Amino acid sequence: MTTKVTVWNEYRHERNDPAVGALYPNGIYGAIASFLSEAGFETRTATLDEPEHGLTDDVLRGTDVLVWWGHLAHGEVGDETVRKVKERVLDGMGLIVLHSGHHSKIFKALMGTSCDLLWREADEKERLWVVSPGHPIVEGIGAYIELEKEEMYGEHFDVPAPDELIFTSWFEGGEVFRSGCAYVRGNGKIFYFRPGHETYPTYYHKDIQRVIANAAAWARPVRRSRPAYGNAKPLERIGGKA
Amino acid sequence: MTTKVTVWNEYRHERNDPAVGALYPNGIYGAIASFLSEAGFETRTATLDEPEHGLTDDVLRGTDVLVWWGHLAHGEVGDETVRKVKERVLDGMGLIVLHSGHHSKIFKALMGTSCDLLWREADEKERLWVVSPGHPIVEGIGAYIELEKEEMYGEHFDVPAPDELIFTSWFEGGEVFRSGCAYVRGNGKIFYFRPGHETYPTYYHKDIQRVIANAAAWARPVRRSRPAYGNAKPLERIGGKA
Amino acid sequence: MTTKVTVWNEYRHERNDPAVGALYPNGIYGAIASFLSEAGFETRTATLDEPEHGLTDDVLRGTDVLVWWGHLAHGEVGDETVRKVKERVLDGMGLIVLHSGHHSKIFKALMGTSCDLLWREADEKERLWVVSPGHPIVEGIGAYIELEKEEMYGEHFDVPAPDELIFTSWFEGGEVFRSGCAYVRGNGKIFYFRPGHETYPTYYHKDIQRVIANAAAWARPVRRSRPAYGNAKPLERIGGKA
Amino acid sequence: MTTKVTVWNEYRHERNDPAVGALYPNGIYGAIASFLSEAGFETRTATLDEPEHGLTDDVLRGTDVLVWWGHLAHGEVGDETVRKVKERVLDGMGLIVLHSGHHSKIFKALMGTSCDLLWREADEKERLWVVSPGHPIVEGIGAYIELEKEEMYGEHFDVPAPDELIFTSWFEGGEVFRSGCAYVRGNGKIFYFRPGHETYPTYYHKDIQRVIANAAAWARPVRRSRPAYGNAKPLERIGGKA
Repeated sequence: MTTKVTVWNEYRHERNDPAVGALYPNGIYGAIASFLSEAGFETRTATLDEPEHGLTDDVLRGTDVLVWWGHLAHGEVGDETVRKVKERVLDGMGLIVLHSGHHSKIFKALMGTSCDLLWREADEKERLWVVSPGHPIVEGIGAYIELEKEEMYGEHFDVPAPDELIFTSWFEGGEVFRSGCAYVRGNGKIFYFRPGHETYPTYYHKDIQRVIANAAAWARPVRRSRPAYGNAKPLERIGGKA
Repeated sequence: MTTKVTVWNEYRHERNDPAVGALYPNGIYGAIASFLSEAGFETRTATLDEPEHGLTDDVLRGTDVLVWWGHLAHGEVGDETVRKVKERVLDGMGLIVLHSGHHSKIFKALMGTSCDLLWREADEKERLWVVSPGHPIVEGIGAYIELEKEEMYGEHFDVPAPDELIFTSWFEGGEVFRSGCAYVRGNGKIFYFRPGHETYPTYYHKDIQRVIANAAAWARPVRRSRPAYGNAKPLERIGGKA
Repeated sequence: MTTKVTVWNEYRHERNDPAVGALYPNGIYGAIASFLSEAGFETRTATLDEPEHGLTDDVLRGTDVLVWWGHLAHGEVGDETVRKVKERVLDGMGLIVLHSGHHSKIFKALMGTSCDLLWREADEKERLWVVSPGHPIVEGIGAYIELEKEEMYGEHFDVPAPDELIFTSWFEGGEVFRSGCAYVRGNGKIFYFRPGHETYPTYYHKDIQRVIANAAAWARPVRRSRPAYGNAKPLERIGGKA
Repeated sequence: MTTKVTVWNEYRHERNDPAVGALYPNGIYGAIASFLSEAGFETRTATLDEPEHGLTDDVLRGTDVLVWWGHLAHGEVGDETVRKVKERVLDGMGLIVLHSGHHSKIFKALMGTSCDLLWREADEKERLWVVSPGHPIVEGIGAYIELEKEEMYGEHFDVPAPDELIFTSWFEGGEVFRSGCAYVRGNGKIFYFRPGHETYPTYYHKDIQRVIANAAAWARPVRRSRPAYGNAKPLERIGGKA
């Protein structure tokens, strides 16, 4: 059964900044959807300025894994959409949060912390070291991924300790960062993946594409209903009573 | 340096239900503050119906560890108070969430999940087994704590996997529950401890008191500022540039 | 690509105890290999009394996931075999340790702890509650699995805190147990699954079969070499030197 | 009650290499014992070439926390000593493993993995970033600790995912490393702390001293017996039988 991925993108930088538009002429979402389609996923896209941000009930119901890229306009995402996306994650939908999405409403709501970090735009080298070599998210990836120029994100990254730490980044300017973090929340799996500043061709890098595709496969929902909650009858006799 | 504990309590059952009032004549908060004082903590109390729910900026600033018991009126706790308590936890204040506090706004905001569970009121036996025998929270506690009558909470408990699982409960009616869960969020430590339904004398049980006192000692803030976040200058030369 | 599973079994009870022999006429290994074959795995078997316990270098190299059931004769498993199996796990081979295998040399060597527990043979009911509802190991499983009669294993279970806790058991006699524990060690994935005492028809239970099959799929190696270790040349200039 | 720390040291480099001897005239153990005594611990020392490596039953029984520094001669530590130290850790004794101790028999026995890593001696800068800002081990420590010259250890570090990751190191030559790793095994707490190559004055650095002292306080045993294991009578009636 094909995994259905929806790639959500703020899609503002690409339209407002000619340099970004030249780099990602079909939007960041287009670049991501393109390599995920090639990898065999059934993909659709959604953007901030569509009605309901493109994330209607129908779209969410039909989404196995949601990829999220936002930056400038986190505040414009409606609270009702955030609530629905969160419910779908707890129901089992996978969520892949990219780069500046660390400050999105949905990621912060699921993490429960500020998700703050250090940052710098200085065209510096990032090297993402694999620290969980047997994880399916790093299948096909070498000891590290090297990106010649990226924005820096540095520790402390104010997130809960990841359930699985997959990558740790080295930055030329002297910082480190937990750059690939896997979480389980409710029935859903979440993967935060750091790289992907809008001014760099990061999403054309084969290893970055491979990691995102691996993550989408890993994050697909298990075929299993969300647990029942609430009042429960006893399964055994209590106090000798029937 | 004495650890300053504030015991917060909804304090409604005790006033509205004579049986609960008879059991906890000084409120659940009074019972908890009493044994924590005896254990050497500097304690104060706060309740829902005080101005700002008793949790003014001054009180929160002066609190090392906050104990939370709420049940009926989670919705009446103001969002601004929840926001402030959450900030203080991320700053380092400890938080001990008791029993029905699993559904409090503050616990759900910090966990990022529904915090739902199965439940039943049937006067049944609970046995809390220690699964982390070397943890400071179980100092002085035997292999298990037995409570003759308690409300049942059963799995699935929709919380993130605890950073440390301390207790797991057995219930007479056939369920199990992760009943002592430790978390770190930001600079703060959080302990969820299941027992303590208002109709049972649970907070008079010596082992339950010991666990809560141990947890208050464990959760005290480390003397260390919250990390700085935001834009950062490089610590090393980038691209051969000074 | 088919996952290759080798089912290892002590195969002593079945030959020495007529009741066990009647229950598992083809050995416990035969019962397990049978349902794994039906589930689409390429299975082979190996037993203690074969040369090299059936685990030659060729067999180990050709094994993606090793299932282990031992009880009476842990001490008869040669240290060299244990060393080789451990190396293969660190290289990426999956390992599923069943029931009394908690005391096997290989499990203790990989855990680093005593792996001790409480136990009792009293024909009592076990109910395995799912505590990680979104995990692939519980795909197709309900809220719990009920076994009418099993041996009891109780806490404290002296293992490292599992990387993922999947099941927790309730026992009729009053104990609880972390009965489904997932670990990563080196490149390899390990799943400990509690049920399966030799005198009960546990391995004929459809849900137990499903869990073991799910675990075998989850534990298959990622296509990725084990990391290189040892002396390393710098990737960047040090101290201004080339 | 004073915490009793035993500082164990191979004490070979200091005697065989004049440069190391000049740096640590009282042995590495002497330097460590000195700052721990000043910090209020009751300290003793033990070295490889003493009878039973200085770790007699009496010494081990009287040790709350054992600090371990070895490098050249891991193979000369007797298996019986390793077995006894491991038992004491499972009983609750704390263990702080420093630097090249990652390859000691005792650390590998407790971890269950190869504990391999990348390494390089190139007088390069190490910067240890705090990733768990609320942990007692980093009380009094800033955002990072900078060491002008150290040996490099790089990922992949073949250890189980730490129960708590406290520090991550940046190295000038381009690598990262999980350099402060906390574990619980049995009743005992273990802290692996990377820095401390014998040719550098690392153990005279105030922040390094503070971390080791904090770790010794954190790792002290909880006053609680190791759990009982083995056959257990039921706590509840089984199958309606008394």
